[in-house]
Amino acid sequence: MRIALLGGTGDLGRGLALRFGFHTDHDVVVGSRDPDRAHEAADAYESTLHDHGRERKITGFENAMATDRADVVVLAVPPYHVADAVEAVSGTLDSDDVVVSPAAGMRRDESGAHAHPPSAGSVTALAADAAPDDVPVVGAFHGLAAGRLAALGADLGIDTLLVGDDERAKEVVSGIVEDVDGLRALDAGGLANAAEVESLTPLLLNVARHADGLHDPGVSFR
Amino acid sequence: MRIALLGGTGDLGRGLALRFGFHTDHDVVVGSRDPDRAHEAADAYESTLHDHGRERKITGFENAMATDRADVVVLAVPPYHVADAVEAVSGTLDSDDVVVSPAAGMRRDESGAHAHPPSAGSVTALAADAAPDDVPVVGAFHGLAAGRLAALGADLGIDTLLVGDDERAKEVVSGIVEDVDGLRALDAGGLANAAEVESLTPLLLNVARHADGLHDPGVSFR
Repeated sequence: MRIALLGGTGDLGRGLALRFGFHTDHDVVVGSRDPDRAHEAADAYESTLHDHGRERKITGFENAMATDRADVVVLAVPPYHVADAVEAVSGTLDSDDVVVSPAAGMRRDESGAHAHPPSAGSVTALAADAAPDDVPVVGAFHGLAAGRLAALGADLGIDTLLVGDDERAKEVVSGIVEDVDGLRALDAGGLANAAEVESLTPLLLNVARHADGLHDPGVSFR
Repeated sequence: MRIALLGGTGDLGRGLALRFGFHTDHDVVVGSRDPDRAHEAADAYESTLHDHGRERKITGFENAMATDRADVVVLAVPPYHVADAVEAVSGTLDSDDVVVSPAAGMRRDESGAHAHPPSAGSVTALAADAAPDDVPVVGAFHGLAAGRLAALGADLGIDTLLVGDDERAKEVVSGIVEDVDGLRALDAGGLANAAEVESLTPLLLNVARHADGLHDPGVSFR
């Protein structure tokens, strides 16, 4: 499987690239609006993986070219760039591809982080609206702390929830998730359930800030 | 500590009464609008605890009388009864008491359960608005599956998040939570963070419905 991480030079993209590179044999492609930054990030991830004893080839391309080569396309961009990112690559998406939306709309005040979904109801729904009709979109990877992903020595032992209306697409995402040691995929239903899943992101930020002894917490359902 | 469970004849009230009765030595008082139902439920809980080898005296009273005797008052009522329940007992609340709000506003459609907070922003905020100004309100016990609580043979191994603006009150609630084997209290910040905590309830219902192998799931932060 070939996994493109659009916005893959950012924190979440880095964390996912390192985990997929470290634990799986899937091809990892870093996408960026700027191909030079994509190349640089890919080289840096290769070097980090080398330092952890994994010799992997990570490639970097401009987002649309990264998408053209991929089976799974992860929108590792801020929520307000999701629609633009999908539209910029939609010419290279086809119905065999799976688009994954990990972003959450949030606002912050002095108390903490708060769910602030877009008018589509969720960022996942926003991505689905922007994608061609025959390309399935799955919400996943919400609330995964980028720092914890990037710390390859840290055990994960956490879950990620999947939402989407296309069962095949959810199976594809579940498969690549379960290939990462310590990460479990759990089905949370259709796209209409995405807002509750995206609310985990501000919740985890609030727990990280206020609860004792939890740095970069994740969540496990049991 | 004396714990009153208003609406204690319902599923969550039953689960909390059994767990507090089984694992702790705190006095458990079942409250109901109907004192006869409160007595009956208290007798039934005593009998269940007896069957599990715990001889406890559980009492039952009309809600205001139950509140008058309690240090901690849990609003184990549906979200649309929270304001009424608080107002009905406010004459017997004082500033030493702690009110606990476990309810979540939800709506359901064919896809699942969805967060649907009241105009106050959260049910916890609604309870705080209804309570006398000097009585602290803490949000807690969200997403605890009543059936799992009531199955006294089942290990919990899950967390409950606390939100509220009064640190002493949160410490009191944290204390009684941690007295229950397998239940951990985690601070999620001030009352303004309650909506994200309450969103856990529909999320857990959706996970229970769609994810394989998880019956009455709870959540663990790690």
